[in-house]
Amino acid sequence: MPDTTLSSSVGLVTPQTATFETDFHLACGKHLPGFELVYETYGKLNDTASNAVLVCHALSGHHHAAGYHHLDDRKPGWWDSYIGPGKPIDTRHFFVISVNNLGGCHGSTGPQSINPDTGTSWGPDFPIMTVEDWVKSQALLADRLGITRFAAIVGGSLGGMQVLQWPITYPERLANAAIIAATPKLSAQNIAFNEVARQAIRSDPEFHDGWYEQHGVLPKRGLKLARMIGHITYLSEHSMGAKFGRDLRTDSLNYGYDVEFQVESYLRYQGDAFSTRFDANTYLLMTKALDYFDPASGHNNDLAKALSNTLCRFLVVSFSTDWRFAPERSRELVNALVKAKKPVSYTNVDSPYGHDAFLLPNDHYEAAFGAFMRRIYSDLNQGTL
Amino acid sequence: MPDTTLSSSVGLVTPQTATFETDFHLACGKHLPGFELVYETYGKLNDTASNAVLVCHALSGHHHAAGYHHLDDRKPGWWDSYIGPGKPIDTRHFFVISVNNLGGCHGSTGPQSINPDTGTSWGPDFPIMTVEDWVKSQALLADRLGITRFAAIVGGSLGGMQVLQWPITYPERLANAAIIAATPKLSAQNIAFNEVARQAIRSDPEFHDGWYEQHGVLPKRGLKLARMIGHITYLSEHSMGAKFGRDLRTDSLNYGYDVEFQVESYLRYQGDAFSTRFDANTYLLMTKALDYFDPASGHNNDLAKALSNTLCRFLVVSFSTDWRFAPERSRELVNALVKAKKPVSYTNVDSPYGHDAFLLPNDHYEAAFGAFMRRIYSDLNQGTL
Repeated sequence: MPDTTLSSSVGLVTPQTATFETDFHLACGKHLPGFELVYETYGKLNDTASNAVLVCHALSGHHHAAGYHHLDDRKPGWWDSYIGPGKPIDTRHFFVISVNNLGGCHGSTGPQSINPDTGTSWGPDFPIMTVEDWVKSQALLADRLGITRFAAIVGGSLGGMQVLQWPITYPERLANAAIIAATPKLSAQNIAFNEVARQAIRSDPEFHDGWYEQHGVLPKRGLKLARMIGHITYLSEHSMGAKFGRDLRTDSLNYGYDVEFQVESYLRYQGDAFSTRFDANTYLLMTKALDYFDPASGHNNDLAKALSNTLCRFLVVSFSTDWRFAPERSRELVNALVKAKKPVSYTNVDSPYGHDAFLLPNDHYEAAFGAFMRRIYSDLNQGTL
Repeated sequence: MPDTTLSSSVGLVTPQTATFETDFHLACGKHLPGFELVYETYGKLNDTASNAVLVCHALSGHHHAAGYHHLDDRKPGWWDSYIGPGKPIDTRHFFVISVNNLGGCHGSTGPQSINPDTGTSWGPDFPIMTVEDWVKSQALLADRLGITRFAAIVGGSLGGMQVLQWPITYPERLANAAIIAATPKLSAQNIAFNEVARQAIRSDPEFHDGWYEQHGVLPKRGLKLARMIGHITYLSEHSMGAKFGRDLRTDSLNYGYDVEFQVESYLRYQGDAFSTRFDANTYLLMTKALDYFDPASGHNNDLAKALSNTLCRFLVVSFSTDWRFAPERSRELVNALVKAKKPVSYTNVDSPYGHDAFLLPNDHYEAAFGAFMRRIYSDLNQGTL
């Protein structure tokens, strides 16, 4: 933990676990006989429990969004640039909750947890999760923490989809929603990329229909390929070109199948690292949650109708070179919100970094997001939230 | 062979084989002790051998570009829409040659051929091919057929790269070059997609370092994934959306890992079909040829300089929704040709079909390409070619 970051860091944090022993019914028709959620909090809940902010994570994210777990951690949480004292989600003012989603592989109940019916890990028997299920589980955690209504719920990518689902499921339970680098539903191309990733994992002979743990192996090849494909879609063509271009790994061409270009080396490294630290069944489940998300589908494909009961204010942020969830996809959402006569601010941030931009420092993004959050704090102080 | 197409079809065609027994030196430093090329011809070579047109194929293409091999063929050759009587490459006027590239898996010498040094198939020992090597081998075929100078050389995608290399290697040997849906070099993102495809094949346990034939197996899983990834890049996001949208395979969601959306079904089908009809070593080799192509690299990255000795006229065609080789990439080439003071016509064809558009019927494309070819025929008749 570098000393220099301390003043703007939430510092050392310790994950907590909440256990729920009630039967939890899922959109897929199955149910979980209780579950655990691992989460972190930053800042302090005020006396009226009105300053809570929920942070929702993306495909490969988790509850560790800010600060450090250990003094010798080299990297802080995944959204540390945006959470901390003086940062857009200012922990001097807000009580921030960041939770590992159900079905995850970072401590919350998921495929690696024990299935009480069998006494062994759930593996592929773990039910398919949807964004609606996550929102319901997050609401149970809010109940547990005494939070009736969030000052704001925020998140990027798949996290942004959870933010969008919240005011549809629980209109009364949040005052503000910040939906960043997201989309109201996946396109055919988005689903296609997910499907190739899934096929890569599922066709790995060491996947064993999801029972790899029982076979003492890991479907590393498949997970590596899935991550490599994902990485291409997270970066813009421009940023990949600027970072790697056609630079060679060595001084001259080797005319073989070893790494020739730097971009190949980068992708292999990213894929290898991911293949041992992430659970394949969780990865599959997360991609399915992405595919299924489509709040308009229950409203005759009319997104404005799906949003008609919402009561919160919205901030929508997209990034100019994001081609995974392009600015057009955010505009679909903004247009539906306008049609539904809901209060919405929208900004398309100029950034060369593609979809990944939502995780990276950027003056315009920080300014827009920061202003949105400062207004919430001002409303909170004036009792108008 | 449908009767209705006969008047505009080249009809039944029979592939031919040319055998070359000279040592063939390759860019990678290795050499082939002779080789065979399989090719087809359409139309008739005139007395002065001045009406020959060479067609170059793309990644998964072959020599069968037009007409039918059998009366009961359901589909004609891959570029039948553009080759035939009255079509842009009018076989009433031109003698068309279409050749399966060296290293291919459709009859020309490649990884499945016998390595005379070992008496068994080359497999992964088959040397890496480059676009320059292909052009040299095609020139040997032209010599064999008595063609000193082509009226035109034409091709799309990787085929277009061969067309671009031709006037650089052999300025005197062609009068016209039509470079369609191509790029003067791959971007980092292009290389990244190729690398994921290669890793998919190479990490398939049935790949056996390329010796799958000797093991009596095929790396079908890897080849399927490679093709699925390829297909996503061949279609535009729009055309994929228009074709499949979020349509479900069955009436309702099944919340599992079977096919849920139509686009998944399509990709799996395409991948499966390809995995048994294409050779994995050839696929790897073709993607490497794409990666390595960069004619400017030997000229201080100055493409205009690389083109300075060319003597032909150029037609460059791009497609509005092609994101594999976007219109910007064609414009790089056009700008370099303009800078080098070379005669070039350029058109960006409005099409919703992405990269695949170069294979599909399109009025504007047919008109532009047809006009270019008619002018060549007119020059031929007037003796000004």
